[in-house]
Amino acid sequence: MTDSVSPSNGGSGHDPEFGPQFQAQLEQLLVWRRDVRRFRRDPLPEGLLEQLLGLANLAPSVGLSQPWRFVRVLSPERRSLVLENFEAANAEALTDYSGSRAALYARLKLSGLREAPEQLAVFAETAPEAGQGLGRRSMPETLQYSTVCAIHTLWLAARAAGVGLGWVSILDPERMRHDLAVDEPWCFVAYLCLGYPQEAHDDPELERQGWQARRAFGESLITR
Amino acid sequence: MTDSVSPSNGGSGHDPEFGPQFQAQLEQLLVWRRDVRRFRRDPLPEGLLEQLLGLANLAPSVGLSQPWRFVRVLSPERRSLVLENFEAANAEALTDYSGSRAALYARLKLSGLREAPEQLAVFAETAPEAGQGLGRRSMPETLQYSTVCAIHTLWLAARAAGVGLGWVSILDPERMRHDLAVDEPWCFVAYLCLGYPQEAHDDPELERQGWQARRAFGESLITR
Repeated sequence: MTDSVSPSNGGSGHDPEFGPQFQAQLEQLLVWRRDVRRFRRDPLPEGLLEQLLGLANLAPSVGLSQPWRFVRVLSPERRSLVLENFEAANAEALTDYSGSRAALYARLKLSGLREAPEQLAVFAETAPEAGQGLGRRSMPETLQYSTVCAIHTLWLAARAAGVGLGWVSILDPERMRHDLAVDEPWCFVAYLCLGYPQEAHDDPELERQGWQARRAFGESLITR
Repeated sequence: MTDSVSPSNGGSGHDPEFGPQFQAQLEQLLVWRRDVRRFRRDPLPEGLLEQLLGLANLAPSVGLSQPWRFVRVLSPERRSLVLENFEAANAEALTDYSGSRAALYARLKLSGLREAPEQLAVFAETAPEAGQGLGRRSMPETLQYSTVCAIHTLWLAARAAGVGLGWVSILDPERMRHDLAVDEPWCFVAYLCLGYPQEAHDDPELERQGWQARRAFGESLITR
């Protein structure tokens, strides 16, 4: 970003231009962002989580509904229930595989639930007043999608601050709502572990462990 | 990012540290990212879209499934069908409002479909081989969520390159699949307009037009 004001800007004035150096660093951030499952146990500095959540709140949302709802899970009892939920869902998932693939699955470390100092359950408000319904009449799932944009924003902001994030999805969503006593009409979207990572990598753990190789982008693009 | 190698890194070696300057610029990027509906008509430079899509391909995905499928819509006939889809869905949405709110809705510019030089329909592959099902047994919607992470990555990378992106969701998803002749088991997630924006703003158009004010993050956080 420079401090220059673009003369062609018909907008709010101070239009930042992001130069090649920032673009290169942003690419590095995307390359080194990871789904972290190996956390150090030391806590985040006071106030950092709130700061990161404030950045997540800048995410785009359908009709400006800002439907993301974050539940900071602090109670050891509730954390134990989440871990039990994960272990049950993970045991069930293991039954989908057999032979060497099952053995590999069983060896994977798929969550940092035992170690991560900060844990957030993330929900989407399914009937928010904010936004007054704009943009979601034919696609109500855009409320969940907006919530995912906030999660991804949090993820990148955390990584930029040296904090790792891991998204746990091997969970029974209804059990999560029950165990966290969420009575509101909220849809469970994700459970996030945050903390300082034990290691840094520029390749995904699932690739390193031989579960799945990444594919090039060209395979995901067609033309009409 | 610095070029220093953290001695405590047990990972892939060259661990980038993102310093305060980058973090401040990243915050600026989040603050100035907008859902753009007012595009200039001039095309993007040759190769830029592919470069941005390559960055989107770095997004996190459940089980490393990379389920995002981008359809670059070039044909004027197909673009007209998308515009008709939008106009029908938008007329239907208008019936949800009355009085001054309906008048305000009717005045809003909710898409840049007539002007945006690049247009992408984004789908999620609902039965990808990649990832071998990992992480999505109890939450299959994580395939769509992964696709949203790719969209949001594209959005930020585009903004960093001075390119605006607008997410159009006022559309009938099944009609979109039909009109774009998508026969694969893909779920429609979003229609994206891209191009250089006419204006830059650090506040959302919906807020500027009096549709919806943003709320502070604290309202979205509870503790358990």
